[in-house]
Amino acid sequence: MWALMLRAALCAIFLLGALPSLAKESRGHVSVVLLGATGDLAKKYLWEGLFHLYLDQVSSGHSFTFHGAALTAHEPGQRLMFEVLKNLACPSDVSPDRCAVVKDQFLKLSRYHQLKTSENYTALNREIETLLQQEGLGEAGRIFYFSVPPFAYAEIARHINGSCRPRPGAWLRVVLEKPFGHDLKSAQQLAIELRTFFREEEMYRVDHYLGKQAVAHILPFRDQNRRFLDPIWNRHHVERVEIVLKETLDAKGRTSFYEQYGVIRDVLQNHLTEVLLYLAMELPANISSTEDVLRHKLQTFKSLQGLESTSAVLGQYQAYTGQVREELQKAQDYVSMTPTFAGVLIQLDSLRWEGVPFLLTSGKALDERVGYVRVLFKNRAYCIQRESLREAGQSQCGPKQIIFYIGHGELSCPAVLISRNLFKPIMPEGSWKEVVDRPQLRLFGLPLSDYYVYSPVKEREAYSVLISSIFHGRKDSFITTENLLASWEFWTPLLDSLTQQVPRLYPGGLENQHLLDFEMMGRELSFTLEEPVELLHADGQMPGDYRTIQPKFRQSPLVSAWPEKLIAQLATDIETAAAKAVTCCGEFHLALSGGSSPIVLFQQLATHHYGFPWRHTHLWLVDERCVPLADPESNFRSLHDHLLQHVRLPYLNIHPMPVHLNRRLCVEEDRGPELYAKEIAELVTNASLDFVLLGLGSDGHTASLFPHSSSGLEGAQTVVLTESPVKPHQRMSLSLPLINKARQVAVLVMGKGKHEITTQISRVGQEPRKWPISGVNPSSGQLVWYMDYDALLG
Amino acid sequence: MWALMLRAALCAIFLLGALPSLAKESRGHVSVVLLGATGDLAKKYLWEGLFHLYLDQVSSGHSFTFHGAALTAHEPGQRLMFEVLKNLACPSDVSPDRCAVVKDQFLKLSRYHQLKTSENYTALNREIETLLQQEGLGEAGRIFYFSVPPFAYAEIARHINGSCRPRPGAWLRVVLEKPFGHDLKSAQQLAIELRTFFREEEMYRVDHYLGKQAVAHILPFRDQNRRFLDPIWNRHHVERVEIVLKETLDAKGRTSFYEQYGVIRDVLQNHLTEVLLYLAMELPANISSTEDVLRHKLQTFKSLQGLESTSAVLGQYQAYTGQVREELQKAQDYVSMTPTFAGVLIQLDSLRWEGVPFLLTSGKALDERVGYVRVLFKNRAYCIQRESLREAGQSQCGPKQIIFYIGHGELSCPAVLISRNLFKPIMPEGSWKEVVDRPQLRLFGLPLSDYYVYSPVKEREAYSVLISSIFHGRKDSFITTENLLASWEFWTPLLDSLTQQVPRLYPGGLENQHLLDFEMMGRELSFTLEEPVELLHADGQMPGDYRTIQPKFRQSPLVSAWPEKLIAQLATDIETAAAKAVTCCGEFHLALSGGSSPIVLFQQLATHHYGFPWRHTHLWLVDERCVPLADPESNFRSLHDHLLQHVRLPYLNIHPMPVHLNRRLCVEEDRGPELYAKEIAELVTNASLDFVLLGLGSDGHTASLFPHSSSGLEGAQTVVLTESPVKPHQRMSLSLPLINKARQVAVLVMGKGKHEITTQISRVGQEPRKWPISGVNPSSGQLVWYMDYDALLG
Repeated sequence: MWALMLRAALCAIFLLGALPSLAKESRGHVSVVLLGATGDLAKKYLWEGLFHLYLDQVSSGHSFTFHGAALTAHEPGQRLMFEVLKNLACPSDVSPDRCAVVKDQFLKLSRYHQLKTSENYTALNREIETLLQQEGLGEAGRIFYFSVPPFAYAEIARHINGSCRPRPGAWLRVVLEKPFGHDLKSAQQLAIELRTFFREEEMYRVDHYLGKQAVAHILPFRDQNRRFLDPIWNRHHVERVEIVLKETLDAKGRTSFYEQYGVIRDVLQNHLTEVLLYLAMELPANISSTEDVLRHKLQTFKSLQGLESTSAVLGQYQAYTGQVREELQKAQDYVSMTPTFAGVLIQLDSLRWEGVPFLLTSGKALDERVGYVRVLFKNRAYCIQRESLREAGQSQCGPKQIIFYIGHGELSCPAVLISRNLFKPIMPEGSWKEVVDRPQLRLFGLPLSDYYVYSPVKEREAYSVLISSIFHGRKDSFITTENLLASWEFWTPLLDSLTQQVPRLYPGGLENQHLLDFEMMGRELSFTLEEPVELLHADGQMPGDYRTIQPKFRQSPLVSAWPEKLIAQLATDIETAAAKAVTCCGEFHLALSGGSSPIVLFQQLATHHYGFPWRHTHLWLVDERCVPLADPESNFRSLHDHLLQHVRLPYLNIHPMPVHLNRRLCVEEDRGPELYAKEIAELVTNASLDFVLLGLGSDGHTASLFPHSSSGLEGAQTVVLTESPVKPHQRMSLSLPLINKARQVAVLVMGKGKHEITTQISRVGQEPRKWPISGVNPSSGQLVWYMDYDALLG
Repeated sequence: MWALMLRAALCAIFLLGALPSLAKESRGHVSVVLLGATGDLAKKYLWEGLFHLYLDQVSSGHSFTFHGAALTAHEPGQRLMFEVLKNLACPSDVSPDRCAVVKDQFLKLSRYHQLKTSENYTALNREIETLLQQEGLGEAGRIFYFSVPPFAYAEIARHINGSCRPRPGAWLRVVLEKPFGHDLKSAQQLAIELRTFFREEEMYRVDHYLGKQAVAHILPFRDQNRRFLDPIWNRHHVERVEIVLKETLDAKGRTSFYEQYGVIRDVLQNHLTEVLLYLAMELPANISSTEDVLRHKLQTFKSLQGLESTSAVLGQYQAYTGQVREELQKAQDYVSMTPTFAGVLIQLDSLRWEGVPFLLTSGKALDERVGYVRVLFKNRAYCIQRESLREAGQSQCGPKQIIFYIGHGELSCPAVLISRNLFKPIMPEGSWKEVVDRPQLRLFGLPLSDYYVYSPVKEREAYSVLISSIFHGRKDSFITTENLLASWEFWTPLLDSLTQQVPRLYPGGLENQHLLDFEMMGRELSFTLEEPVELLHADGQMPGDYRTIQPKFRQSPLVSAWPEKLIAQLATDIETAAAKAVTCCGEFHLALSGGSSPIVLFQQLATHHYGFPWRHTHLWLVDERCVPLADPESNFRSLHDHLLQHVRLPYLNIHPMPVHLNRRLCVEEDRGPELYAKEIAELVTNASLDFVLLGLGSDGHTASLFPHSSSGLEGAQTVVLTESPVKPHQRMSLSLPLINKARQVAVLVMGKGKHEITTQISRVGQEPRKWPISGVNPSSGQLVWYMDYDALLG
């Protein structure tokens, strides 16, 4: 080890002798340490970025040294690294002569270090210090670029913090590369670890997408074109936003990483989310204030609606599992569930964006490599003259869109495109130029001639842009800890909900055809085409469609089906009852239960029953928990969120149970049950409800009538207070005698968890004290059981 | 006169002698009388329709005579009429031989009558009777076709009813041509007149659009394709509906009619409205039940949202006024305001169609002649593969539409077009055939090859279709009195509101370019391009817009305007406050007063402020009468009917005052004020409401705080019970101290009746016991007075 150290020191001294003009009018020395100096990312982008930084800064008065580091021993490491450095190229606007001179200097300022042990770090620090002393340099700062796997972060961080901090007054900047955890918990843990070694302002978390020129121009574009965008950058004008990163490559050779992460963690959680924020955030008055931008980003996170498994569609290219088996030595029957394609629908709860779909899409093994953001505006115009006479690009009836074209694809360069029928944008003249070639190329449904098209005067690699920002201490293109955790907080519930979801297999490339096309239905996404191969149910026999398997259950009609069909049938039956009641008597009195099964029913009623006579429907509660109405535990709250929000019921027809009177919950002397009973008696003829929907608990309870309840099972009381064995204990409920006066009663039973009780009560007689459900027996009305196959057959 | 009669009789007898086989296996004789037999419509369509009817029915067993009638004397009339008849042609599927024979028969069965006097009608009747007797024919019925100006209807109707009714047991059918009045009142009057002569079932009001094959197929198409359309024929899937009739001709030669009617009465009120109903109505189970169809149509009328002047854009081709001056001998400075072009936005208040724009458009002197209905569906899909790879017509990302192509235009025949990415429709095989020629022709943004295209096997003139329906007694393609009046009831308010609106002038034909393009903004329509020439107001000086006349009233800002502008300004100010509050703090607390003035405000908010953040708004009452909430006297009830019914406020954000607790009204011990005060304290930060709207009573009261009230004018209580000098005496009210904590307070004062109190309180100091309104003085908020000119200036 000492031998190695010595050799490194000697080598350093040798190099120092040849250092080009380090001390000239020095504004301080900068040491850049690239950890992972021989890795893929370093080879492909980072050394180039550092070289370009040096090219830019060579005359700035700063002096530099560049330290490549890795675990490899000195000699082979040095060889590998200088292989890379030899091939560095200058941007096209640098003359060959200057390029050769500066590159030569750069090579002289660069050296390789094996950084493995604590001693290695101490030696590195000593070397820097020695240089500073020998050359009489003031220290400006040190950059440590972590291009290493995240499991190595903590140890490296400890070493840097322990022995490589710069002199007091000089800055430390550590640059971190994703992944930054794989869910909220791991990200939090990593963040805590890093915080023990570095201050927040010392950390630069890279999302290289933020260095892409088209992405980096989103905020400036919004800022410079405020007067055009202010009136239209909102839900009244924007039809949808698409944020897309398509790749043709697959994960071959990278499955050890990819199998743990998948496309959502790899691309959506970071790159596409950051782009979404740039588009959706409220624009700060001063976009160059990093703090303001961050604050607005964080506010935008708060307005994102939570995602559910139905918010996403997942795919996996067919060869993927084979690649995983091979590269990770998995068994031949191993099947990966890792998605390599995802489409996710995000909506915002904000005045500006409510109802506007943001579609995030990314995948590997697709038909083309391209990244773009497309903001499509609504067509609100009617154009009177016939199509053939409309001037393309001018007609208000043509599509209106703004596209931030990130790169690749048919345009093959970064660009900003604005439909000519929108406005002529203001673009910074020095850095963006108007492009007019290839007018016939069609992009997003229009020829290029229908857009104002701008591309950067000088194309720059994202990493060069970001390395320059790091050097200048500009933090706005980096991910703060808060930002990172907010993003994981948003994505983790979706990731959790998708673990069991089988991704759709796709062949890859052009053969995918329409297989991955997807569509929105309300807040849900689904593939447009049916799964091409019908998956058989395990037993191969089950009916796909609704049917009545047994005509009777406990002497009453039974409807049984798979859940979806069952709910559809029940919703239809309720609508039929409603139409009949309204035709007959002008109103329909419907009493609904709480619980989880009815939620699907509420959604079905809200979204599929346009003809439902809501204006003439009175809504009653079968039972309620003694919590305030707005409490998430409240049955009414669930009814409100899943049904009432979506249909137009007159306020006066809505009858929540009075569990919260005089600002207290279910207190006897407030006589809530009596009030509700009177309300029913007053509005409902003979207190005979038209339709009562009940559930069934696994202990045989229904409504909030539990076994051995002291009230509600018999007697004259129509509404009662009861005690539940589970929390919240206090409940209010319609009584069995009232339920049995209804014209129609439906009992909805779903899920395997209900199979046991279903079997039990199929055998018992009428024993309401033991099994309250067995007391449901309408005196002159009709009882129907709605059971899914799981509940019925187990 | 007698000579004429005699001649007519002789002529009749002469003709009768040559009658072809009238009595052969007769199923009864049908006499068809065409009034206006030599007019334009008769020449162009009606005789042909009658001839085709005869062609169809010649072997049916019925016998026919055809009586052309007009005011012209016999000989010239007869000559004119037979000119027309000689030129009649058969449909292409009739052989020339058969055509010649049948046409010859038709000519023999046709005769001309001058019908002017009562005697003329008696003679006609006698002639028919004579024929029936001589030939021993039973009478099946008589058709009287009114192809005459509507002012002649009443007299002709009287004559027919008086002397031309058929024998008992035979039917009478009178066929009426539009216009059927020019507004609701005139239509009602005409309907009443006609009803004195005819029973409803005897009247056939023609809207020839209903005989157009593409229009007539709308209901059958919806019926036969229910399984495809049921899921998508609603607001979730339909983006917009366009109902369009464009003409190239102008009104030259017809201005005497046109100048009185204009395009809305000529085309929109009848043809396009009927088409709208066919599209929008709930589909009856049995579409061949005329009663069911009519009932559903009438229901649909009820769900149409009322139109306002902002629902329409109007145009007039430049040459029109000149044509009117010339044809109607008007002065050279006469300027016509009659629109020859209109676009109207109609929306429905139904679960199915809420929010879907139905655009009705028609005009003369446009760039092409075409009629169509276009149902455009929303694009909910994201297509993953690049555009150039998508298969046109199959991609879910291509436009999806259904078009009922009524005729003319580039397709030049009636057709039904369905995007291939929607579904392959079921079409009646005998009568519609698939069309595959001209695949490259572009219609509605797509080549014809992207549609399933069907056209009628046999093209039929609308009048032929309708005349056949009349003969068969099928009433479903005719306009009943109820339907007609419902339509006028819908259109008349718009027509009234537009009388002063200056139509935009357009050059006509191709030169119109984009001048008539229009666009939607919420519920309003406007031309896309600015008016090319700025029109000056008559006096050149009066601002049409709101302005502040006096800056201050009682030391606070005063907004004063005519009522409509005042309300518009107040509504805008409330929305601004709401947006600000929601942006800042996530919610907006608005307290509204009862009374009549706010009703207009509620309506304004409900219909013009679609950007209002209702989901984040809490609604409080400023005061309430001690009556049940559903009582018509209740302030809440008024708020409910005029605002809450129309916007989507979460149930839990609505806070009626608890005047009805424990099923009794404002009883002290129920402590309603205390409960409301606590609710406010709990939900509103610092109990500081964002916006409080007050009124002003002529005794100086505001909220329900009356002069010399014992509570609410001062003290710590925030909600109080008070006594009103007028019934109902008991009230609940926010107190002055609470009101004065609000961020913004608006006092709305309208009408001459308020002028006196306004004058009085402009002079008094702060004397809340005498003038409660004078105690309104927000401690840190802003008070603004909104007064109309009547209240302010008397």
